[in-house]
Amino acid sequence: MPTVADAASLNRDLERHAPSVLKGLSPLGRRAFYPAGIPHQAAEARGTTYNGTIGQITDGHGHALPLPSMAAAVALEGADRDQAFLYSPVDGRPELRQAWRDRQRRGVDAGVPSTLPLVTDGLTHALSIAADLFGGEGRVIATPAPFWGNYRQVFTLRTGADIKAAPYWRDGRFNPLAVAEALAEVPAGEPAVAIVNAPSNPGGYMPTANERELLCASLIEVAASRPLVVLCDDAYAGLVYEDDIPRESMFWSLAGAHENLLAIKIDGATKELSFFGGRVGFITFGVEQGSLVEAALESKVKSLVRSTVGSPVASSQMLVLQTLRSPHADQEIEAVRFELEGRYRALKTALAGVDPSLLRAWPFNAGCFAVVDLPAGVDAEALRHHMINELDSGIVSIPPNTVRIAFCSVAEAEIPELVRRLEQGVASMVGQG
Amino acid sequence: MPTVADAASLNRDLERHAPSVLKGLSPLGRRAFYPAGIPHQAAEARGTTYNGTIGQITDGHGHALPLPSMAAAVALEGADRDQAFLYSPVDGRPELRQAWRDRQRRGVDAGVPSTLPLVTDGLTHALSIAADLFGGEGRVIATPAPFWGNYRQVFTLRTGADIKAAPYWRDGRFNPLAVAEALAEVPAGEPAVAIVNAPSNPGGYMPTANERELLCASLIEVAASRPLVVLCDDAYAGLVYEDDIPRESMFWSLAGAHENLLAIKIDGATKELSFFGGRVGFITFGVEQGSLVEAALESKVKSLVRSTVGSPVASSQMLVLQTLRSPHADQEIEAVRFELEGRYRALKTALAGVDPSLLRAWPFNAGCFAVVDLPAGVDAEALRHHMINELDSGIVSIPPNTVRIAFCSVAEAEIPELVRRLEQGVASMVGQG
Repeated sequence: MPTVADAASLNRDLERHAPSVLKGLSPLGRRAFYPAGIPHQAAEARGTTYNGTIGQITDGHGHALPLPSMAAAVALEGADRDQAFLYSPVDGRPELRQAWRDRQRRGVDAGVPSTLPLVTDGLTHALSIAADLFGGEGRVIATPAPFWGNYRQVFTLRTGADIKAAPYWRDGRFNPLAVAEALAEVPAGEPAVAIVNAPSNPGGYMPTANERELLCASLIEVAASRPLVVLCDDAYAGLVYEDDIPRESMFWSLAGAHENLLAIKIDGATKELSFFGGRVGFITFGVEQGSLVEAALESKVKSLVRSTVGSPVASSQMLVLQTLRSPHADQEIEAVRFELEGRYRALKTALAGVDPSLLRAWPFNAGCFAVVDLPAGVDAEALRHHMINELDSGIVSIPPNTVRIAFCSVAEAEIPELVRRLEQGVASMVGQG
Repeated sequence: MPTVADAASLNRDLERHAPSVLKGLSPLGRRAFYPAGIPHQAAEARGTTYNGTIGQITDGHGHALPLPSMAAAVALEGADRDQAFLYSPVDGRPELRQAWRDRQRRGVDAGVPSTLPLVTDGLTHALSIAADLFGGEGRVIATPAPFWGNYRQVFTLRTGADIKAAPYWRDGRFNPLAVAEALAEVPAGEPAVAIVNAPSNPGGYMPTANERELLCASLIEVAASRPLVVLCDDAYAGLVYEDDIPRESMFWSLAGAHENLLAIKIDGATKELSFFGGRVGFITFGVEQGSLVEAALESKVKSLVRSTVGSPVASSQMLVLQTLRSPHADQEIEAVRFELEGRYRALKTALAGVDPSLLRAWPFNAGCFAVVDLPAGVDAEALRHHMINELDSGIVSIPPNTVRIAFCSVAEAEIPELVRRLEQGVASMVGQG
């Protein structure tokens, strides 16, 4: 009969085998553990003939009992159908976790440690759980800037952590040391968190091989003097459009690289499988599979999944699994990447032709976005409104004077016109100034 | 151009129009507001021809671009298909919110206030958001006991609130005053939270008309001397098996009943539509639709949804909407209720025939479960293990000497045998004692 550990015993295991991970935990992270509740009792009774443990409406023999009008919309059969309509285990469907791990680790050296991924309700949920575990009052989170707005909600609003902006771009060039530099003033010994998003949002940038080496070395150096958690936000994993840029996640260069460094990989089906509405994310730790450290972190994550959403969405997991089992999956994923590469090239070409005194694009080679600087004095918010109201076009403002273009959702044929209108909009506002 | 309020202005609106709601908010609840981020900018640019705001992979013209092997598993077409694969709005699909509201309010007096439901990733997510808003260090949460284990994780582990058990059963009878009694020692003026779950889990009980009146009156009296939030956990709404028991949610008797009482309805498709794997829940407030109080609470909920899961699962929402649109939905839902009623009657009959010195069932008339007391000295955990190991049967233990039987997942024909084995198991342990 398996026993279930309490928080104190999990924390003792971390103390012994990964003391820097324990030091990095927030107060909530320390309290968290997955208790021996009803899911545990139901797991133990699985396989009994007369099973009255399961709090789900079934046909009386363990199979789902979906409403016919809903079942008609889901083209899955047998066990797959049951698993789509019934609860997922709190840590996710085992077959999906294994399939995702296999996909993650293709081409990765067997010696690089990583845990079996835990399923979450999308990437934000995984980030929010990481924030619950390692954020908290006063904790410094070095974050590449400009950054996706929700980081502030997830880390600061919810946990009280202190986001420190790390400017990814300096004089129009990517600065691989930015994140490490943002942590320079944190006293030695004090735990810290660093976010690495590559490809980046909104920057659309994947580091070159050389920049990658510098970035990783700088974080390992930071870890020499403190417990350091590195969150690899791999939302846009694989969406790289230049052949000389390494495609694999930074996570694989950081996992196991230093005893004080805990790398966490946050990825999922949202962009990698073009399944935005499904909310299937994963959280994976850069520690040995099967270790006590994995068990402790897994118990804490399960506690946080259960107390935020009960269990992760099962129906979407089955759709993702359906895809990963298909012999055409790689081809289909590559077709999406290739489609985006066409839009990327169209945007590169269009931006290369604009007046550099009006629009100056930051380097981009990946992801879904490009970022463009406006001339001094042109207000990004005013330009955004002008574009909607006068030029029938939408761009995202990053105040004071930068804008983001999402090339992931504009047809290749329309990209030149979008850029032409953007240039026209800026020109008219410069004229006004 | 709509402007987006910050936390201070939302709190001012609450101060003016619902001061007791403001007093009840946790520190996180006070900080929360939905910022004018990228979703807001994308909403403003909706409808432009050259729209580069959307951070989703589309076909370039706003339609989803699902992988073919995943799309094959979803039998939805056109706009429905797009909406299943693309992000949901943070507050949920408007058509689903309206359809759920229409369903909720059938037979409800037009004068009883309720907001447009906000979509969450299942009922636990809605509970967790309510806990974020109104829990926090030291807040008392009166909770019918025995209670579902996750309440402790959601309220105490996450927010530091103080769960106070309110024994729903006294001398084998339902005590409608239990929740109010549990709050008796909270000083006047101090905000408090009460949970009402009807039908209950694990109790499987829906109050009679008379008990319902007593329960509501006792809570309104509590609200006379403090801000009181009443969370109506309506997970099992509609699953009532006796004709003389009112089926409608307690929420409708509490919404708008006192200016100090904020009723919150938490419900969803999990049990009501037998869609456990889909994770579609709703949170609805007992305040006027269209009011500034609704707007303030909605902004805060959206902030918490966004910072926990990004946006609620879109694919499941479309499956729920598919069902609600069907002319057969009511019939299909009633068929599930009728199936469970058969199991309920079989369990009633079987328990009526057992030796009352071995098993004594608490009153039950609803939901998915029955609770049974064991003789003094018979340990529920030991019995549970004995049932699995020797009698091929599963029940859930509620230590020290009570067990829960889930009749929702056992076929009607097998229920008598499950009860026979339970009686046999208890008898053998009494013999040992």
